[in-house]
Amino acid sequence: MKSDDRAIGIFDSGLGGLTILKEVRKILPKENIIYFGDTAHVPYGSKSKETVTTYSLDIASFLESKKVKMILIACNTASALSLEAVKKHIKVPVLGVITPGAKRAAAASKNKKILVLGTESTVKSQAYPKHIKQIDKTVDTAQRACPLFVPIIEEGLLEGNITDAAIRHYLEPAKIFKADTVILGCTHYPVIKKRIARIFGKNVTLVDSAQEIAKETKSLLTKNACLKTSGKAKVHIYASDSPDRFAKLSARIIGGKIPKVRIKKLNI
Amino acid sequence: MKSDDRAIGIFDSGLGGLTILKEVRKILPKENIIYFGDTAHVPYGSKSKETVTTYSLDIASFLESKKVKMILIACNTASALSLEAVKKHIKVPVLGVITPGAKRAAAASKNKKILVLGTESTVKSQAYPKHIKQIDKTVDTAQRACPLFVPIIEEGLLEGNITDAAIRHYLEPAKIFKADTVILGCTHYPVIKKRIARIFGKNVTLVDSAQEIAKETKSLLTKNACLKTSGKAKVHIYASDSPDRFAKLSARIIGGKIPKVRIKKLNI
Repeated sequence: MKSDDRAIGIFDSGLGGLTILKEVRKILPKENIIYFGDTAHVPYGSKSKETVTTYSLDIASFLESKKVKMILIACNTASALSLEAVKKHIKVPVLGVITPGAKRAAAASKNKKILVLGTESTVKSQAYPKHIKQIDKTVDTAQRACPLFVPIIEEGLLEGNITDAAIRHYLEPAKIFKADTVILGCTHYPVIKKRIARIFGKNVTLVDSAQEIAKETKSLLTKNACLKTSGKAKVHIYASDSPDRFAKLSARIIGGKIPKVRIKKLNI
Repeated sequence: MKSDDRAIGIFDSGLGGLTILKEVRKILPKENIIYFGDTAHVPYGSKSKETVTTYSLDIASFLESKKVKMILIACNTASALSLEAVKKHIKVPVLGVITPGAKRAAAASKNKKILVLGTESTVKSQAYPKHIKQIDKTVDTAQRACPLFVPIIEEGLLEGNITDAAIRHYLEPAKIFKADTVILGCTHYPVIKKRIARIFGKNVTLVDSAQEIAKETKSLLTKNACLKTSGKAKVHIYASDSPDRFAKLSARIIGGKIPKVRIKKLNI
């Protein structure tokens, strides 16, 4: 099979999608990747469908101009609000994070109660409850918006009093629903997964879609005969605004050295 | 004197500038006001000079198209990074919030130690220390960036554990500087002024520039013979993204009913 050296394009509002980049690199270590963090517009989670879609289309066009072979929308808000629009707009295959997360949670839940944690806009979109219902009609879903988690993580406060106060504030009231499965419905949230796990205890499964979407990516590239089979992987990282903090924090999220962050201003 | 019915234009990244709108209305109750909250790009405080300036110029052009008689940049980050650029770009007078706050703090401090609280970008710009030095060379200035205050306030958490944890996190270490005067160098911060005051105690003066810039606005309009002297005031509020939360929270900040929020998409 001929090696397909075109890169995989991944984008997010900021740092969160790096949790997905990390999983993709684990199971597809030879693939070239172009990552785009929209730091000029972060956060997406409190913004409207129209605004988030405008940003998403602009980024997808940039990735297409870089001749990527597929695009991962590594942001739950953008996946919930803009996946269909990006699919229409772009010729290469596009994957979002909602479906993989919903599938895995539906498979994991025994008491048929799933709690979805996400941004305001993801929650408002009802994307997770709708998808879960399509997979299994008997599952009952509750949602909880946690709007401060993204700014707290982007600020690098991965532990400490503020983080714990925010976790308690959003999650304590949600325990009443007694879900046995909790979807971390925002790609930032796995960064504070251990502290979230403490609130729910050992009997609750936390689902993050990073591993699942990485597996889907591999299946898709295999099916389409688009795997890169030889040569060293190149990872290019772009941000739409000043990359100082981005560079520092992304090293913490990915764990280890990350490549130089390039600036790419968007048109919007 | 002929009544000048053109509106005063005020803009901010989001809700914070409403603290200034409120003060302007107190001392200039007849003036028409057009307020613009850039909710599609909020927050500004972690973004670069170039990006904040692009947003500021676009908003200023919109306000100019509405034939305002002057523009108040009711945002410390935009004032610190973009005042000069907006002044060059716009024909009507433009006021920022840095100079009034610096003046008032320099006049208030007896031990000549001023602490500036602000966003990351305001702090990095050194705008306050530079201005204070120009007013009084003997004053010693320290700065503390408090990046989570804006998302916490925009989220409506004006009290409670998260707010208090964040206040302690940022401000306890800053007390070592022993300033007798603290500048609330972000127009959002007055919204949690009482809780900030608790940390510093009674002997510390908290300066917010809202009253000062309102006074400067009145002086400027008087000097230029541009006061509106008759008729009822009209206040128009625009936001660049979905105004649901904006409308709810702005009522809390201004205290009382606010006019309908209109959406005005920016070109960027």
